[in-house]
Amino acid sequence: MNMYDLILKKRNGGVLSKEEITYIVMGYTEGSIPDYQISAFLMAVYFQGMNPQETVDLTLAMADSGERLDLSEIQGVKVDKHSTGGVGDKTSLIIGPMLAALDIPVAKMSGRGLGHTGGTIDKLESIEGFQTGLSREQFIHNVNHIKLAIAGQTANLAPADKKIYALRDVTATVDNASLIAASIMSKKLASGADVIVLDVKVGSGAFMQTLEAAEELARTMVSIGNMAGKKTYAIITDMNEPLGEMVGNALEVQEAIQVLRGQGEARLTKVAMTLASYMVLGAGKAETIEKAEEMLQETITSGKALKKFAQFVQAQGGNPDYIYHPEQFPKADYVEPVYPTRTGYLSACRNSEVGMSSLVLGGGRETKESQIDLTVGIRLLKHLGDKVDDKEPFAYLYGNDKGKIEAARMRLLNAYSIQDEPVETQPVIKKIILEA
Amino acid sequence: MNMYDLILKKRNGGVLSKEEITYIVMGYTEGSIPDYQISAFLMAVYFQGMNPQETVDLTLAMADSGERLDLSEIQGVKVDKHSTGGVGDKTSLIIGPMLAALDIPVAKMSGRGLGHTGGTIDKLESIEGFQTGLSREQFIHNVNHIKLAIAGQTANLAPADKKIYALRDVTATVDNASLIAASIMSKKLASGADVIVLDVKVGSGAFMQTLEAAEELARTMVSIGNMAGKKTYAIITDMNEPLGEMVGNALEVQEAIQVLRGQGEARLTKVAMTLASYMVLGAGKAETIEKAEEMLQETITSGKALKKFAQFVQAQGGNPDYIYHPEQFPKADYVEPVYPTRTGYLSACRNSEVGMSSLVLGGGRETKESQIDLTVGIRLLKHLGDKVDDKEPFAYLYGNDKGKIEAARMRLLNAYSIQDEPVETQPVIKKIILEA
Repeated sequence: MNMYDLILKKRNGGVLSKEEITYIVMGYTEGSIPDYQISAFLMAVYFQGMNPQETVDLTLAMADSGERLDLSEIQGVKVDKHSTGGVGDKTSLIIGPMLAALDIPVAKMSGRGLGHTGGTIDKLESIEGFQTGLSREQFIHNVNHIKLAIAGQTANLAPADKKIYALRDVTATVDNASLIAASIMSKKLASGADVIVLDVKVGSGAFMQTLEAAEELARTMVSIGNMAGKKTYAIITDMNEPLGEMVGNALEVQEAIQVLRGQGEARLTKVAMTLASYMVLGAGKAETIEKAEEMLQETITSGKALKKFAQFVQAQGGNPDYIYHPEQFPKADYVEPVYPTRTGYLSACRNSEVGMSSLVLGGGRETKESQIDLTVGIRLLKHLGDKVDDKEPFAYLYGNDKGKIEAARMRLLNAYSIQDEPVETQPVIKKIILEA
Repeated sequence: MNMYDLILKKRNGGVLSKEEITYIVMGYTEGSIPDYQISAFLMAVYFQGMNPQETVDLTLAMADSGERLDLSEIQGVKVDKHSTGGVGDKTSLIIGPMLAALDIPVAKMSGRGLGHTGGTIDKLESIEGFQTGLSREQFIHNVNHIKLAIAGQTANLAPADKKIYALRDVTATVDNASLIAASIMSKKLASGADVIVLDVKVGSGAFMQTLEAAEELARTMVSIGNMAGKKTYAIITDMNEPLGEMVGNALEVQEAIQVLRGQGEARLTKVAMTLASYMVLGAGKAETIEKAEEMLQETITSGKALKKFAQFVQAQGGNPDYIYHPEQFPKADYVEPVYPTRTGYLSACRNSEVGMSSLVLGGGRETKESQIDLTVGIRLLKHLGDKVDDKEPFAYLYGNDKGKIEAARMRLLNAYSIQDEPVETQPVIKKIILEA
């Protein structure tokens, strides 16, 4: 077998065998196949696609390219959630405590990542004392005892994915459903969960801009999950604007607490509840989706989910009092109102500009070495379809530097379109994919 | 400008500007753009193609990536010929003396190359004393005085082509008409000729297997030549079997001499005469193609072309007596007959196997360092459509090693198919392309 022949085969529309795909993934991970052959191969895949079996084989080869987490010491059906990413997405912080309150184990390894805000573990570090560096033993102990642990990823999960993703990122070969699906699912499969619920974002602020593309990706991932023996559901959700009101690190944790208090913004609450209810269903803790939602609702009204959040924070060294008294979260020096440029209806949002606004304030990482300012961010008072008045702020910027706040303001104003006519709003849950 | 955006643009079917193409070619030549981005780009070009203007821009950027030969000191219209390559092609050795005999300057820089035989300069080195390493001054002096010089290429012509070709060769991105055309024409344009005649081979032994593909390539190259201000013609010729009787180095020079004596094999003679006549036409030395052919024929019947060959050999230090008495060429120790496996008609030839037969005998280079045995080779007594008899040899092998001869025999027998029914033969000149 040699790489040249495999590039040629794919280029000519051929179907690769499991052995051939494994040869490519292993060869590239070990370094025996050079970047320039893999990038040509990836471009051929972009044009010729991969069939479902090839996509599964690619995913499994990538999942097996490094360690697979062994979560067998954790009792119960382990559920995991993955979002394809969007601005203001803090659902993990909401879902974890709710599920744990229902005795469903949530064992989450999370990266820090680059972007407009930090990752989940960055956000949690805004809580005084919170530790994300858990030993394997601690991690498993915490999940078994309080049903929830979120730790920084230390294991070498799916190294082939890291290497391939980095190459795709500089060779314009990112946007192919098979490659995206394999990238996401290889990490999920290596993370050892039994049930996987996928939040596939669609819209101007998402990777998938159309419902068709999102659905193709969703079905591909569900198919991979099922073929790998995991119960897998995908929920397609709207990402034409940020999810919820808050964008930032400490701010997003506070918004999650608000949802757990039953006072969350409607769309964010809906997405978190929907994802969580399919996780409950997948874990076999409810017979129907209505029952699952009811159980989850009860964790909020009873205060059990909030209590679980506090318990989880304490177990990882954090001050649990933050959860009950969020006014203790570190604060930015300035909170500046943002007035819309005109009166009218919010008709479109360029999410990437909202993200840039948060990044400019210091809330995200541009490079791996960037320091994140956990206090800064944005609060959005209005959503698409809402009427705005040029005499009333439609957002607030939280910042520690007046110059950065002004730059962020320009970005934020540039993010929104306003029109005279009323705008029809979109439901936040677009489609639910239970089978491929 | 950055390479990522240009890959994306081409991937999405966009048309690149001259500036963008120049950025890519220069960046890659200088090393500021990495292999892995260029290979992804080349694969995108494979799928999306390049339009005629992009192809011209690519060719010119590659031609300008290194030196361009300055042949301005050579008097007259300089003509050049290029063949896309095939087994037994020795037309350069025939055409050069004929044109020079008509006072048309032929200034040929030639590589050694890899393959089943050596390049033109390897072949000429089978003549005692012949020197292919000429200084620039000598080279130009010889062309001005005897109208013919053939030297090893020393100039750094189209280095971008070398680098891009090497990458295409390992990433399955060779067979695209724009890339092939740009590769060939960039070298031709950098070589400084005024008139270019292209011999585009078609058939089982050629890069282009169908007439349509050959014609597309031919038209693309003619279009590039014209847009670059060079008179350019393409002749599409048959390469379903080796051209002429001889495959080898000394053997091919001897066959060229035979053609110049008016005793050449029919198809080889036809191809050489056709190419040469369009070169005469392009040089403005004849009004019509019939007149050009007549003039060329006269260089043979009068003995002027043979005399020119001898004069050229002498000017480059070789023994001119070889041309009049070819029995002086170095000889292989053994000449072994090859009998066909059965009686019937030669119906198909796998040229690559004939080439391998020559390579096995020692006639070609497998790596840059390989030493060529100039004496070995093959003489083919029969051509496609000919009747063969298992009692009569249809070929002879010239070798210096009995073991290699036996291996070469297996290759050669494997190269031909024989059938009971008579076979229709193909004309050797398939099509003449005078404009794009």
